Amino acid sequence: MKANQIPKIGFLGGGQLARMLILEAHSLSLECHVYCDSKLDPAALVTSHWHPGSLNESDKMLKFIDEMDLVTFESEFVPADLLLSIEKKNPGKIFPKPSIMKTLQNRKTQKELLQSHKISTADFMSVQTPADLDKAWKELGGAFVLKSCYGGYDGYGTHFAHQFSDLGKLATTVANSPHEFIAEKKIKFKRELAAIFVRNLQGQVINLPLVESKQTEGRCDYVMGPTKHSQFEKMQKKISGMMKKIDYVGALGVEFFDSGKELIVNELAPRVHNSGHYSQNALLENQFLLHLKAGLGNSLKQPKILSKNFVMVNLLGTSENPMSLPENIEGSLHLYGKKENRLNRKMGHINYLGDDSKKLLLKALKERKLFHS
Amino acid sequence: MKANQIPKIGFLGGGQLARMLILEAHSLSLECHVYCDSKLDPAALVTSHWHPGSLNESDKMLKFIDEMDLVTFESEFVPADLLLSIEKKNPGKIFPKPSIMKTLQNRKTQKELLQSHKISTADFMSVQTPADLDKAWKELGGAFVLKSCYGGYDGYGTHFAHQFSDLGKLATTVANSPHEFIAEKKIKFKRELAAIFVRNLQGQVINLPLVESKQTEGRCDYVMGPTKHSQFEKMQKKISGMMKKIDYVGALGVEFFDSGKELIVNELAPRVHNSGHYSQNALLENQFLLHLKAGLGNSLKQPKILSKNFVMVNLLGTSENPMSLPENIEGSLHLYGKKENRLNRKMGHINYLGDDSKKLLLKALKERKLFHS
Repeated sequence: MKANQIPKIGFLGGGQLARMLILEAHSLSLECHVYCDSKLDPAALVTSHWHPGSLNESDKMLKFIDEMDLVTFESEFVPADLLLSIEKKNPGKIFPKPSIMKTLQNRKTQKELLQSHKISTADFMSVQTPADLDKAWKELGGAFVLKSCYGGYDGYGTHFAHQFSDLGKLATTVANSPHEFIAEKKIKFKRELAAIFVRNLQGQVINLPLVESKQTEGRCDYVMGPTKHSQFEKMQKKISGMMKKIDYVGALGVEFFDSGKELIVNELAPRVHNSGHYSQNALLENQFLLHLKAGLGNSLKQPKILSKNFVMVNLLGTSENPMSLPENIEGSLHLYGKKENRLNRKMGHINYLGDDSKKLLLKALKERKLFHS
Repeated sequence: MKANQIPKIGFLGGGQLARMLILEAHSLSLECHVYCDSKLDPAALVTSHWHPGSLNESDKMLKFIDEMDLVTFESEFVPADLLLSIEKKNPGKIFPKPSIMKTLQNRKTQKELLQSHKISTADFMSVQTPADLDKAWKELGGAFVLKSCYGGYDGYGTHFAHQFSDLGKLATTVANSPHEFIAEKKIKFKRELAAIFVRNLQGQVINLPLVESKQTEGRCDYVMGPTKHSQFEKMQKKISGMMKKIDYVGALGVEFFDSGKELIVNELAPRVHNSGHYSQNALLENQFLLHLKAGLGNSLKQPKILSKNFVMVNLLGTSENPMSLPENIEGSLHLYGKKENRLNRKMGHINYLGDDSKKLLLKALKERKLFHS
């Protein structure tokens, strides 16, 4: 934070990630502006400065960015080319840099970036036509995962070729999509792990603890930690090196497959990430605060862990409306202010601290059920 | 929290205490409405629902309260009689109850409440005329503190009679004031202590740890804890008993004098309190969240302490404008969003966690200096 000014910070997008970033930005006394569709969006509810507009309204967005001192994202799916042209006029205003968003929002260029830094990741092939699927089956040695290069999240845009006969259905998907795909060799893994890395303007890099994340149908179900992996230290160095090379500023969510011996990067998310939500209660500084500090050029410190173990469970929407809100929750509740409860919509999460991670998880899963009346 | 509804909660007053209450209320997904003078007030910046008005505009305030499901305060200096009449029409909507606010906002009736519960507090006398000052000097055995019955805080409204010749000046103060006063026997104390008590709708009472608070010119300078006192357990029971008797709901700040053997109540604040700000980082649940849970009827649990020791230092305004904002603060910063920096105005606070309270305090006082460029 520069002396003698209260910066205006703009958030593109009004979901729960922007909401939680803004809640931390207030503690730094930043003037928080949010650019999103509705005044009832989760992030628009937690600040007095709402700017209506959507990410495809380029004039409105340009005007918004122009009024800010600093701008950041809650999603990688932003119009990167437009932002690139804005950045040229305002170098350093947008973090992470639009050029990085462009690379990471596309699964193919993201994989190429990882490979160019010798960061272990599943073998893949580009899929542009249905014919490429047969080729992929052959070259990747059988079963693979077909992922849309653009726009996939929470399991959307991901399809499986478990057996050769699945290719027919996938051919239709490929033929009907406006986007390219990649076919990724299916990794046999024991656990899915994740860690948040943060790099500031000055180049300091820290990372939050390695955690285990449990996915259900491509969506994060719960996270527990801290955990260990023999290859994590090596991985830290490689990821730091990559962040330095591309001049990354802000939080970077990294998802891994743990195959036993190996640690393989599944995906990078150039933003705060669901796997880091535990940090709101379990760490002295959480991922949201650290992302902001990174962009402001504040110094970073590996944050203190406040508990031997921690668990975060997501609270997914039900078909009831509104969601039932129990009175006796021991965990630390973080709700997103969404009025409309839809099945599997991320409505909030709950964090638990304690000494015994198994007990914590049992309690978490039990308390979570109370939200379904 | 009742099932199947998102309550609208209203906050009377827009200062830093309302701001920090709202930041916690968001995590519970409450719809946060603030009633205060300016859109730039600390609390109005952290929600999308601002209702312009001041505490003496009774029609506006009535309308505001009418629209809410639940209403709370950040200051005891509210028009209690007006709120009492509103409460009759909406029993249970306002917490703590207006009748309690009426008793506690007046130092004389507050002292009488303490005495009626046999809670140790300094001897006092009512002072309505200058002649009462001589009487007080005699009956209280010399030196005393003259306190305005209404409206005093942060040292304002407090005057000292160290020697008999001071009475002349105090006589002018008494003659020119619209309010009554009390004269309180001066207590010789070793330390000033404080603790936050919280009681919920169902009658559960918990308290946060006992802490030491260092006052300078009647204003809180820093807080460190946890600490102990042999009489605290007895005091806990008496305060719980009093809260039960008056059906108190919400957070209650209690300030003590530690005379060595005795623990003497200096003052009650029927709200969240500066001496509890450390709880934002040092406890699993902070005073702001607990105040809200109490009013919502959520169950309460003595919150886990996350660190062996903790320190909170207040960040007071300087004569520079705006305040200098350093880039390398190790403590956890909580700024109030006040644009105008005025000498001794409470601008924010910083929390520190660690094992050695002396080291923490030294670091805190050193880092605080960085805010003065």
